[in-house]
Amino acid sequence: MNIILAEATEVVDRQLTLTDHRAEHIVKVLRAAIGDRLRVGVINGLRGYGSISALQKKYPFSVSLALELSEPPAELPPLDLILALPRPIMLKRVLSQVTALGVGTIHLINAKRVEKSFWEAGLLQPQEYRLHLQHGLEQAVDTRLPEVRLHPKFKPFIEDFCPSLVGDYRYLLLADPAGEHRLVDAVADKSGRILLAVGPEGGWVEYEVQKFREQGFLCCSIGERILKVDTAIIALHASITALRECGNRGNHR
Amino acid sequence: MNIILAEATEVVDRQLTLTDHRAEHIVKVLRAAIGDRLRVGVINGLRGYGSISALQKKYPFSVSLALELSEPPAELPPLDLILALPRPIMLKRVLSQVTALGVGTIHLINAKRVEKSFWEAGLLQPQEYRLHLQHGLEQAVDTRLPEVRLHPKFKPFIEDFCPSLVGDYRYLLLADPAGEHRLVDAVADKSGRILLAVGPEGGWVEYEVQKFREQGFLCCSIGERILKVDTAIIALHASITALRECGNRGNHR
Repeated sequence: MNIILAEATEVVDRQLTLTDHRAEHIVKVLRAAIGDRLRVGVINGLRGYGSISALQKKYPFSVSLALELSEPPAELPPLDLILALPRPIMLKRVLSQVTALGVGTIHLINAKRVEKSFWEAGLLQPQEYRLHLQHGLEQAVDTRLPEVRLHPKFKPFIEDFCPSLVGDYRYLLLADPAGEHRLVDAVADKSGRILLAVGPEGGWVEYEVQKFREQGFLCCSIGERILKVDTAIIALHASITALRECGNRGNHR
Repeated sequence: MNIILAEATEVVDRQLTLTDHRAEHIVKVLRAAIGDRLRVGVINGLRGYGSISALQKKYPFSVSLALELSEPPAELPPLDLILALPRPIMLKRVLSQVTALGVGTIHLINAKRVEKSFWEAGLLQPQEYRLHLQHGLEQAVDTRLPEVRLHPKFKPFIEDFCPSLVGDYRYLLLADPAGEHRLVDAVADKSGRILLAVGPEGGWVEYEVQKFREQGFLCCSIGERILKVDTAIIALHASITALRECGNRGNHR
């Protein structure tokens, strides 16, 4: 935890009192003492610092913090994600990793090669997946929770929902190792929002690619090497971020 | 497995007979039949195809393949890695992920914030870590195994070994969220090899940063957000690859 996150309802008169795993973390991992200042933030709210005003170092752990919160959350990340629902164990890691990298909205969708059972995972309950989003925020010192939306049927997603969505984006990218565009050619500069679609293990089927194309998505590749979905998502996110920065620098050279 | 990998010693008269987990994978996951052609490669050798000439579909599984191997391995990746030894469970994933992305040599080194117990992990035995490198090759359809070198003491590594190493590289990069260079400014174009150093969870200590600086490393950041080591390595690898491609395109614009 690089920042202690709290719900807005937990803050009373600029005071925050913790008695759960966060208190334990402050005592046992951070080994903090009265008077220490820690990074604190309110989920979907301000960031700042908390000074420890009281501390119970033995079980049951308890920590009280006097808060000074004045920094706004990090800016809305320019990238939103459409992701063919991965296996739950991979989804946990992906949710916290993309949240750490920065993402606005994550659309989890169905695809031919998504196993049906994945849609029954307990992880798809908001109180479950939110934990993994929070881990990503705690890692990256951010307070802005990504929005997660579930689309368990492909056709209604692509035919009915997508047309109302795509207008918000300057770049519509479909990741596909066989894609005819190189990512470097598809992402030219720093302005405008990006919607990136990443397929399941085994890839999109041709019908799905065709449907995305009809919505205006460009099929992009970052190289010949076939990557697992969890590796590919991070690599694509980082590549897009780097290419936008590079394109922008080019304008000033 | 996107390619079936074999040791050179397993190939006899252009025939390969498998009776282990690879045979089981071909039968149960690929559901292959006699006459099917599969991607096959020899570790550190040629890639090509194997046609199934015999198949035992029930336990004990057995598959015989007639090989046509003529493609050279993928080119030596332009990036080598210095990595502060991560926790074994993370190292497993990192080894297969960076192998899938492409890496020449991986130097695993000690650092102040590396837990001593990590050096006792069974995973550091060659026959153990090689499995995870192979998973990366099987994923990325490559046959070139990265080299792994262990350096359990920091000072001899940086003072005695590093000076003989750095001459091979055009770019010496130390990843550090507080680094004074943006990666986009440090990696200008596509030529020359890169040596990238990534620290432990919690980061390098100032002494270590200083020692790397003395060897000519530039301290580079890919942004404000603090990432876990496994996320950071993939993001850095992908960013460097994208920036080199971008720089190279820029020359032709």
